[in-house]
Amino acid sequence: MSLIVQKFGGTSVGSLERMKHVAERVMKTKEQGHNVVVVVSAMAGETNRLVSLAKQIQENCEGREYDVLLATGEQISVALVAMWLKKLGQPACSFLGHQMRILTDSAFSKARILSVEGHDSIKATLRRGEVVVAAGFQGVDVHGNITTLGRGGSDTTAVALAAALKADACEIYTDVDGVYTADPNIVATARKIDRIAYEEMLELASLGSKVLQIRSVELAANHHVPIWVKNTFTDNPGTLVCHEDHEMERVVVRGVSCSRDDVLFSVRRCNNQTATVVKLFGALAKANIVVDVIVQNVALGGHLDLSFTVPKDDLSHAREVVKSVLPAIGAEGITVNNDMAKISIVGVGMRSHAGVAAKMFAVLEAAGISIHLISTSEIKISCVIDRKHAELATRVLHDAFELGQGGLSKARVKTSEPRPKR
Amino acid sequence: MSLIVQKFGGTSVGSLERMKHVAERVMKTKEQGHNVVVVVSAMAGETNRLVSLAKQIQENCEGREYDVLLATGEQISVALVAMWLKKLGQPACSFLGHQMRILTDSAFSKARILSVEGHDSIKATLRRGEVVVAAGFQGVDVHGNITTLGRGGSDTTAVALAAALKADACEIYTDVDGVYTADPNIVATARKIDRIAYEEMLELASLGSKVLQIRSVELAANHHVPIWVKNTFTDNPGTLVCHEDHEMERVVVRGVSCSRDDVLFSVRRCNNQTATVVKLFGALAKANIVVDVIVQNVALGGHLDLSFTVPKDDLSHAREVVKSVLPAIGAEGITVNNDMAKISIVGVGMRSHAGVAAKMFAVLEAAGISIHLISTSEIKISCVIDRKHAELATRVLHDAFELGQGGLSKARVKTSEPRPKR
Repeated sequence: MSLIVQKFGGTSVGSLERMKHVAERVMKTKEQGHNVVVVVSAMAGETNRLVSLAKQIQENCEGREYDVLLATGEQISVALVAMWLKKLGQPACSFLGHQMRILTDSAFSKARILSVEGHDSIKATLRRGEVVVAAGFQGVDVHGNITTLGRGGSDTTAVALAAALKADACEIYTDVDGVYTADPNIVATARKIDRIAYEEMLELASLGSKVLQIRSVELAANHHVPIWVKNTFTDNPGTLVCHEDHEMERVVVRGVSCSRDDVLFSVRRCNNQTATVVKLFGALAKANIVVDVIVQNVALGGHLDLSFTVPKDDLSHAREVVKSVLPAIGAEGITVNNDMAKISIVGVGMRSHAGVAAKMFAVLEAAGISIHLISTSEIKISCVIDRKHAELATRVLHDAFELGQGGLSKARVKTSEPRPKR
Repeated sequence: MSLIVQKFGGTSVGSLERMKHVAERVMKTKEQGHNVVVVVSAMAGETNRLVSLAKQIQENCEGREYDVLLATGEQISVALVAMWLKKLGQPACSFLGHQMRILTDSAFSKARILSVEGHDSIKATLRRGEVVVAAGFQGVDVHGNITTLGRGGSDTTAVALAAALKADACEIYTDVDGVYTADPNIVATARKIDRIAYEEMLELASLGSKVLQIRSVELAANHHVPIWVKNTFTDNPGTLVCHEDHEMERVVVRGVSCSRDDVLFSVRRCNNQTATVVKLFGALAKANIVVDVIVQNVALGGHLDLSFTVPKDDLSHAREVVKSVLPAIGAEGITVNNDMAKISIVGVGMRSHAGVAAKMFAVLEAAGISIHLISTSEIKISCVIDRKHAELATRVLHDAFELGQGGLSKARVKTSEPRPKR
């Protein structure tokens, strides 16, 4: 008998009426002959209610007890969804993180799943014909402490369960129809993507797309779990996230993404030594600050100029850290630009297509948009630009690479070089 | 180092501000050199909120998932109280039912504690100087299912922990000063009792006093755990519940209690055979209906008349059951009286004092109160009366046995017969 894992987010279980709708959706899948594990998040608003209680005690409230508190949100959801299923005539049984033995490390509020050890008791429940209603977002560490996986963690729970139970599919239900070529709020012609490679999804997720948690995509790729992103409220087919294939490589650019969550640091006239970058980025890493785009160039006088972006939330912390190492690297000073955006294009087809970067720069230039930094990976090109140009850049790139309705970005780029030349 | 278990009910942790007060109270005890395990209930109102969610799905919602739902109430409380303690500088660690391994049977919503198996990890936490913040009301069965202990179950959690950890004292904090000689809302001169025997407390609890859960008193008596009932909001000494001693026996009547939660069944003209009571009460027991006062007498024609009380909540169920056995016991019919109250006096001193019952009847008669049924135990006399007389009966008995301020009910009853003669 096939097994399908279905995950429903906070909006999908935001009220008792919506939970009933979820229960009915699950029962339809069950009636089609599949076993179902349904993973649910906390009811929309519940997590915020709990966070606000904690913050009234202490602003920086993260830690062991914060996770104990937040885990109640999903516990309420699983109980109520299981009640609905039973009420509608479908036997069901809820499972909490510790009952499924979703073993994580002990990094409270951002724990990583290490293994799912309770699959035997989950399987036994499925064999009895019951639907398993699993609490997303939560796990347990080796000492029995309750942990949580960070915002969006229920996606990761769903993929981890699908991998551990060798499910036939993992369906992530949300309030949009799938993954789009660009934010539909910005680009009217944005198109739902039918199939997207894990790597592309990973880049999009780390570039600001909120559809799936990065960690869940990594896990799915590592365990070969196909993910369907679907709309809770429609019957549309959604987006399939899977391993890349030949067909996918023919598409050069899968999507355009824009992030406004970074700030740009520039450190001028440092000592021109490798020790400089070791000291600077070592200090930032030690402070747990994730540095994204890094550009190093040698200025006329032989000095080093360094620029990089960090998450906006880490701005003041990063400034302190950088200031503390300025003497050691002989730097003149720093400037911080808080008015930046990062515009990116993503696609596995870039690997075998030349001229993509050149075209991107030309399109931005033609629109009068200055590029401050450039960073590339095998399947992505990012440009740091002024924030005021973020929406314009998204639109002109979406148009230029023909990502809109009906279009497939094959045209106007020479194909088939064996190595990328950008 | 001595160990004190302190339990705070829903009103005591009803807001973040009150939780802070609880944390400060716990810290005071810690500063006096004691280890502390603090047991907390759900915030006042939280359990009702959860119950109302469940009841919108299904009126009869008790069962496995209902307990999963309700257990979140205490989970929120332990997290927040532990946060307050840490914020105030006192290291603390929360424990849920399954983390303490409070093992219960699988009777969801009214589970009984079988053992506390996690005492080693609790003790290790105490040894590190931390306060243990334990979730009341919840446990786990042998299969790992979450269970709850019924309303007032946090008292039982506290006593069970005190017994398992061999605590020096168990303090139950509530919003009154202790156990009273009568309900102070009815009797203005009601006096706080300084010391009361477990047996007396048990009778009072089963007769409608809401101060302690019956099961917690049983457990305390069996494990020799002294319980202090104290007021969260004052520094008054409270009431000590402990084994009876000579001093206690000198007091004939400890308190007056009145319950309005029963209905009176009368079954007339049954066959005068032992088989009649076997069939009737066997059928009620099989239906899980607790029968309290039973009176049997032989009427003039040689027929049996039977009267008994059952909890008001079981009225319609009990009526069905009794009707179904009427032919088998040859009875003529039943009458149900829904307008009754049960007035009781309780005291271990009754064992060695005669004339207590006679005095009770005389006092009620003098006040113009008819007695419908009488039931006695070693340390209690209960009379079923009309509900309209409930408050009057409480007041006249309280007066007659001199339970009020300054009085000790020794007078006017002959003392010292070796066997009770009532």
